[in-house]
Amino acid sequence: MKNRKLLMIPGPTPVLRSIQDEMGRETVAFGDSEFVADFQQLVNDLKELWSCDGMAFVVAASGTFAMEMALVNNLKRGDALLIVSNGFFGDRFIEIAKKKGYVYDVLSAPWGQVVSPEQIAKQLKNKKYDAVTVTHVDTSTGAVAPVHDIGQVMKDYPETIYIVDGVCSVAGEPVDMKKDHIDVLFSGSQKAFGVAPGLALLWAGKKSLERRDMLPEVIEYYADYKKWAPIMDDTKKYFATPAVNMTWAMKKSVDIIKEEGLENRYARHRKNAGAMRAALEAMGFTILADPSCRAVTLSNPLYPEGVEDLAFRTELEKQGVQVAGGLGEYAGKMFRIGHMGNVDEHELAATVCAMEKTLKKLVPGYEVGKGITAFLKYLCS
Amino acid sequence: MKNRKLLMIPGPTPVLRSIQDEMGRETVAFGDSEFVADFQQLVNDLKELWSCDGMAFVVAASGTFAMEMALVNNLKRGDALLIVSNGFFGDRFIEIAKKKGYVYDVLSAPWGQVVSPEQIAKQLKNKKYDAVTVTHVDTSTGAVAPVHDIGQVMKDYPETIYIVDGVCSVAGEPVDMKKDHIDVLFSGSQKAFGVAPGLALLWAGKKSLERRDMLPEVIEYYADYKKWAPIMDDTKKYFATPAVNMTWAMKKSVDIIKEEGLENRYARHRKNAGAMRAALEAMGFTILADPSCRAVTLSNPLYPEGVEDLAFRTELEKQGVQVAGGLGEYAGKMFRIGHMGNVDEHELAATVCAMEKTLKKLVPGYEVGKGITAFLKYLCS
Repeated sequence: MKNRKLLMIPGPTPVLRSIQDEMGRETVAFGDSEFVADFQQLVNDLKELWSCDGMAFVVAASGTFAMEMALVNNLKRGDALLIVSNGFFGDRFIEIAKKKGYVYDVLSAPWGQVVSPEQIAKQLKNKKYDAVTVTHVDTSTGAVAPVHDIGQVMKDYPETIYIVDGVCSVAGEPVDMKKDHIDVLFSGSQKAFGVAPGLALLWAGKKSLERRDMLPEVIEYYADYKKWAPIMDDTKKYFATPAVNMTWAMKKSVDIIKEEGLENRYARHRKNAGAMRAALEAMGFTILADPSCRAVTLSNPLYPEGVEDLAFRTELEKQGVQVAGGLGEYAGKMFRIGHMGNVDEHELAATVCAMEKTLKKLVPGYEVGKGITAFLKYLCS
Repeated sequence: MKNRKLLMIPGPTPVLRSIQDEMGRETVAFGDSEFVADFQQLVNDLKELWSCDGMAFVVAASGTFAMEMALVNNLKRGDALLIVSNGFFGDRFIEIAKKKGYVYDVLSAPWGQVVSPEQIAKQLKNKKYDAVTVTHVDTSTGAVAPVHDIGQVMKDYPETIYIVDGVCSVAGEPVDMKKDHIDVLFSGSQKAFGVAPGLALLWAGKKSLERRDMLPEVIEYYADYKKWAPIMDDTKKYFATPAVNMTWAMKKSVDIIKEEGLENRYARHRKNAGAMRAALEAMGFTILADPSCRAVTLSNPLYPEGVEDLAFRTELEKQGVQVAGGLGEYAGKMFRIGHMGNVDEHELAATVCAMEKTLKKLVPGYEVGKGITAFLKYLCS
């Protein structure tokens, strides 16, 4: 029998059987009273867990769509946008800003580093912006932006909407709209929530809802807060057919998060990330992200001399573990491994062992045991 | 034990166990070679089955999003749009056209009737339009537009894009982009495809892809053909994370359709619709749609004197059958029942029996048997 395939890419992450079973349940009417109650509970829980004083939206779409939704309800053509980019997904805001006709500036950091709150403070002093976007964790680099400290800067600019892309962070990295002064937060179902891909999540704080009210007509239809707001307020109502089974799966994920507790979940992510990195470094990999800004949701290890990307990932997949390749200039030099959501120590240990077996095959003289020993030592420390 | 709940609303429709099981499968990476092949097969099958000479798109979203996608890739602000509306969902194009700044005219029919090809021909002779939208089956009325005959008019206007809203028709009502000269067709997963809600489907013919090339920048991001086209051409590529499990379920639905054969599927829909209507009329209901334009995917029966909407639907639900209420001015006067997708004779027979039991409870002197006898006679004729 071949090994089961472990899904260690940075999303979709492994889906627990109990969540997957919600996907496989018999579909019901979106007006079904039980579904309506489940959907409402989900929306309310999302608001409460991330301290949102406005509205949470759950929409059949991807995280990419949530990026668009975040922008179009807070900015109009010609508005000034500051894009804080720490990598590939930060840069994606540039592409959307161009399409939408915003006037934008970009503050960017070398890959593996992050733009500092001080740099942002300086920029905000020099120029007035209608919104600022920050990518919390850019999966292209594995670096985590200091959204809390940036929020302490943002709170002095009440006319600027603070938008945080939490696709690869929410439910793994600590983030709290109130404490971090975030006006718009968004994510997707398939990362730290551990649900299959297919749902976009967006939290709009009071300030963002007020901004939407002040905008002239928003040209986008499916992305318009105002089309969805009545439904999120009262899930009996209809705008577009909700993804019933995906919504149940999402609710199950949030139930699991409530049971675990956010603080415990964050601590688990920190511990798992630390153990995985200890293993990776012991096996000869170098973590791209600077130690000062390493995300807990994924790691982006650079290959040691003599290990070829395709050979490594192909052999690792034969051993039953899927990881993702590097992006941009790091394609071929790095791989990306998720350790977020509902991944547990068993899966991480198995992953490290499969990597050791892979290195044993590819690197002459490689002695197995270093990685998994470091992993265990970290967990026992 | 209570009766199982039969989902007889006009979408989501009952999902076969084999399709639902695809939803419940262990989620894999969107780059997984097996998933990539399945996704490509699905896209190719969709193109072939509906004779599309351009491109089929499968996107995590709802049918409502597909409406927007259909418009924004074919029209720019100020372009002339003719909206052919036969009800609530036809009118929805007006709302989007307003948002987008199109210059639009509306041809509409009284609910239960449809705008004729002759009316459309006359309008097109008088004025040049960049696009025409037709709602194939408007679920608010249960009337089916003659998209084939309209297509014979449209083919004389090669500069006008013919857009058909097939949300409540594709895979149930006969429609063929080539024979019907349709340039853009769209649908959703949860109606005649019999999949859970969560996927938007859109077919863009060659003419529509060329139109997109001629447009200046499209302001919408997630709805832009050009963002998705590379992925639909080669499903290994990435734009936004595809809804893996939903995509599998959709593929399963299309596999079932291929096995059944489209013509057989259409014939089954015709037969089931005929039998259900014979039953409804025998039980005293009146079908809203004119006999000349009755859809095979759903029926919209008006209540006989003395049967109150809420009482009927509440009791019917107690009997284990869910139907939908009327929309607009027909709220309270009518209900809506789907008989499309993978619903079979067993479910329809059970539904008719539950209606008989419901009427027996609500109507003094009602004698059971008329409806189900008419149903059986129709099937045996």
